[in-house]
This record gives sequence, structure tokens and C-alpha cells, in this order.
Amino acid sequence: MQQNEILMRAAINLANVNIEKGGGPFGAVVVYQGEIVGRGANEVTLQNDPTAHAEVLAIRDAAQTLGHYDLSNCVLYTSCEPCPMCLGAIYWSRIKTVYYGNNRKDAAAAGFDDDFIYRELELPMAQRSILMQPLLGEEALDNFKRWTKKEDKTAY
Amino acid sequence: MQQNEILMRAAINLANVNIEKGGGPFGAVVVYQGEIVGRGANEVTLQNDPTAHAEVLAIRDAAQTLGHYDLSNCVLYTSCEPCPMCLGAIYWSRIKTVYYGNNRKDAAAAGFDDDFIYRELELPMAQRSILMQPLLGEEALDNFKRWTKKEDKTAY
Repeated sequence: MQQNEILMRAAINLANVNIEKGGGPFGAVVVYQGEIVGRGANEVTLQNDPTAHAEVLAIRDAAQTLGHYDLSNCVLYTSCEPCPMCLGAIYWSRIKTVYYGNNRKDAAAAGFDDDFIYRELELPMAQRSILMQPLLGEEALDNFKRWTKKEDKTAY
Repeated sequence: MQQNEILMRAAINLANVNIEKGGGPFGAVVVYQGEIVGRGANEVTLQNDPTAHAEVLAIRDAAQTLGHYDLSNCVLYTSCEPCPMCLGAIYWSRIKTVYYGNNRKDAAAAGFDDDFIYRELELPMAQRSILMQPLLGEEALDNFKRWTKKEDKTAY
């Protein structure tokens, strides 16, 4: 338990340092066998990258450190409950355990859209604030057909 | 309408070329004032990066091209309905219009987890397959308090 708290404090500390650097108040670390292998803080405005959230950067960093996109045996510590983008990234990384500090309501109170985006994702496509239109589905499906038939592919 | 089809075919073509390169069957382009300013294809296995989906890479590329994290005036064309991670990235990028080819059911049939992750995100935290534990919420909240008080921050 104390180990968990040390690692969460590492994530919180990344958030604190990042605020001073001009970034957002979010930090995260990815841990493998008790060791930090990935670090991230919200650098959206610093890097001009809307996807540069703490968890996304920590996952990318860990995957580079470990040399694999599958982080099944890792644990994520993040200063705030992940937004839908980051939670999606966690599922794709196969991380199975997440410790979080603040929650989505705290984030909303601090001016971030996490809670709004969670509600949007639950809506049927036609009710979302983003216009989503199907187009050329038949042509696009050819990709999946070729993928399915390809014998030397790296499936994941 | 024909312009939309040309741009969607550019996204589909990126997916096709990517299959040959050993990547996944997904492609996307971000368009600003009728011009492609960002391109991406699924490079998860090629880059060892679980976040390297076509839409994420196209958004990052467009934000670098335009020099801003806010892509409000851009349109995204993607060969497949975005997964929750990518849809989250689209919300954060402020893109308002998305054209997509295949849908999440097609993706599931081709072996991708998009539909599973959509269903997981709708579940209460305790029912998800990922263990999510709150930890040190009080300490983490200090970040948001400092952020809220900070006068020279770049809010977004």
C-alpha cells in the first residue's frame, strides 16, 4: 500500500512541476515490476498537441521503454481519473490496473471537459455535438477484407 | 459532395498503403479549408505505440502543421468510425465534423476491440474489466487548486 502511495505521489508531482512549466495540472506514471518505465504530464498547450494528455504520454513512453505496445503487466498511476481518450488508450495498451487521484467532477470544476465528453460518448451518434456522417462504407470495407485475408499480418 | 468523396478516398488509400507496410487497416486525414493538413494510419505495431491510431496521428500531424492544438475549423475523414480513444481526441481537438467509412461493428468483425471498449466506457467504474482505484484524492486536489489560482495559465 505504501508503495502505491509513493507511485501516486510521483504522478502528482509530475502534475505540480508541469503547472510551473506552463502545462496542465495532470501527471501520470506507468509502472512495470515496481519500477517507473513511463512518465507523462499534460503538454497540450506546450506541444500544440491535443492528444498530449499525461496518460497518453506516459503510455507512449512506457511502450518505448519496454519495446512493446502491449503493457498488460503494467500499472498506471494518474493524478486524475482518465478522460475517455486516455481511458481508451489504457484499454488499447492492455493495462489492467489504474490508480487515480482526482475524479472527473473535480476536473470539470477545474475547467476541463472530461465529464462532458463522457456524456457525449454515451449518446447515439445523431445526438452528439459532433456531426458524424457515414461515407463510402462499401469502398472502406475493402480494407478490412484485405486485412482479414492477409496471412503475415501483426494482429493485436 | 464529390470533394468529400475525394478526401475520404485519400483516407481509405492511407489505410490500404499501410496494410502493405505491415500496419493496421485504418487511415485518416484532417482537412483545413479544403486542403489536407494532417495524415495518419494505424502504426501501433510498427511504432510500438498503442496510441498510434490513424485519427490520433492525423490530429497530431494537423496540429503541428497549423501550429495550434485547436482544430475547430478542420474536418476529419477516417476510413472507420473512430474508437473511443480517437473520438475523445476529436473532442479535445475541437473538430466538429467527421466523415467515416467502416463502422465499429465492421471493425469488431475484423478483430478490433472498438465496440468492446465503447461498451466498457458506458459501465460504472466498478463493473469494468480494468480495476480502477481512487488513491490520495486530497493530495491530488491541490494541483487543481493551484491551477485554478494561477493567473498566467494557458486554459483550453
